[in-house]
Amino acid sequence: MHRTKVRIVEGALDANDTIAQANRADFDRADVRVVNLMSAPGAGKTALLERVATDLPGLRLGVLEGDVEGSMDADRLAALHVPVTQLNTAPGFGGECHLDANMVRSALPGLALDEIDLLVIENVGNLVCPAEFRVGEDARVMVSAITEGEEKPLKYPLMFRACELVLVNKIDLLPHLDFDLDKFLYNLDQVSPGVERILVSAKTGEGLGEWRDWLARMGSPVEAPA
Amino acid sequence: MHRTKVRIVEGALDANDTIAQANRADFDRADVRVVNLMSAPGAGKTALLERVATDLPGLRLGVLEGDVEGSMDADRLAALHVPVTQLNTAPGFGGECHLDANMVRSALPGLALDEIDLLVIENVGNLVCPAEFRVGEDARVMVSAITEGEEKPLKYPLMFRACELVLVNKIDLLPHLDFDLDKFLYNLDQVSPGVERILVSAKTGEGLGEWRDWLARMGSPVEAPA
Repeated sequence: MHRTKVRIVEGALDANDTIAQANRADFDRADVRVVNLMSAPGAGKTALLERVATDLPGLRLGVLEGDVEGSMDADRLAALHVPVTQLNTAPGFGGECHLDANMVRSALPGLALDEIDLLVIENVGNLVCPAEFRVGEDARVMVSAITEGEEKPLKYPLMFRACELVLVNKIDLLPHLDFDLDKFLYNLDQVSPGVERILVSAKTGEGLGEWRDWLARMGSPVEAPA
Repeated sequence: MHRTKVRIVEGALDANDTIAQANRADFDRADVRVVNLMSAPGAGKTALLERVATDLPGLRLGVLEGDVEGSMDADRLAALHVPVTQLNTAPGFGGECHLDANMVRSALPGLALDEIDLLVIENVGNLVCPAEFRVGEDARVMVSAITEGEEKPLKYPLMFRACELVLVNKIDLLPHLDFDLDKFLYNLDQVSPGVERILVSAKTGEGLGEWRDWLARMGSPVEAPA
């Protein structure tokens, strides 16, 4: 009787992580820093990109737009002369509610990595599954709009824990909402103690300088994390 | 040589639809009407239920609360003495971003169907996957908050097409947003022509009478659709 013993290696990566590492290696070779930008639908990811896209001195920005279908956000950014690649999850990916490493990999041939320093991957609007899939990014940023309520960190803890920066958006609406900012920040610290956060408004411009500086640091090969 | 011929029946249901039909049969036996309530995170599903839950004359309401984790929304409704069953997708369902028929079925033993007339299933906050899974409901309702932007019907067409009623919520914020209501309604009609819609505000009460009447009709065995 012939037997083959298959040894399961401890710490073996799942398929997504393996592909994410391959993406990471390609980004490194091209000296491109990558940010995975996530939020619920309509929290303002595209607006916050629009507002700083043309104001990143010395930094060549590129965007990979993830959507179930359509290219409306990509069109908005392309109008600012930002190189944008659209990745739709409906045709070919079964209408997935998130991007994974393999989808991002499928988009790499369309990205001129040599011509950009910082790639922002705008994920599908969803607070659950995007947090479960690394795509080869350096950092994850999430946008939480105050219109969504104070309890969101407690309801979607994985998403809030998974990111290095939380942009608290639509802060201009504070006077018009029953939203307790202290309570939100307390809830945020409950699930991700001390995580970096910036209060922003794509409408009034509040906090956009800080957001732009964060992206500029991230895009700089010297200061970005290894 | 022995051969077994397996005939694939045309129109065979997938597993989810089979279980949804079983749920439907159980609901019918108990004479319970069922609404599947869906939206993006923070659009106001729970608030809109809270505002009408104690104001449905002659109708016994029950709620099945779907969340990744936690029971905050269920607690809010239980405080109003509405019978609520919490269904968390994190333990046992892998942190799923939606409810499916099998998850709802797993909750049936905890639901006193004989003691309610109308069951509202509050789905996980997500505009993608919940629309792909029937759970045995009579009708699907979605809440779209105007803070999410006018283009949401075009970006998440399946969700907007899948439902019988769209609640356009947070209408009180209209003066404070760059939101073109006519454009939103035009986009809505592009993907789901003529779908019933009610403009509502859980805060000011606008449209809540109409929403309550819709639920009352749905919960009435005579007038509800077969």
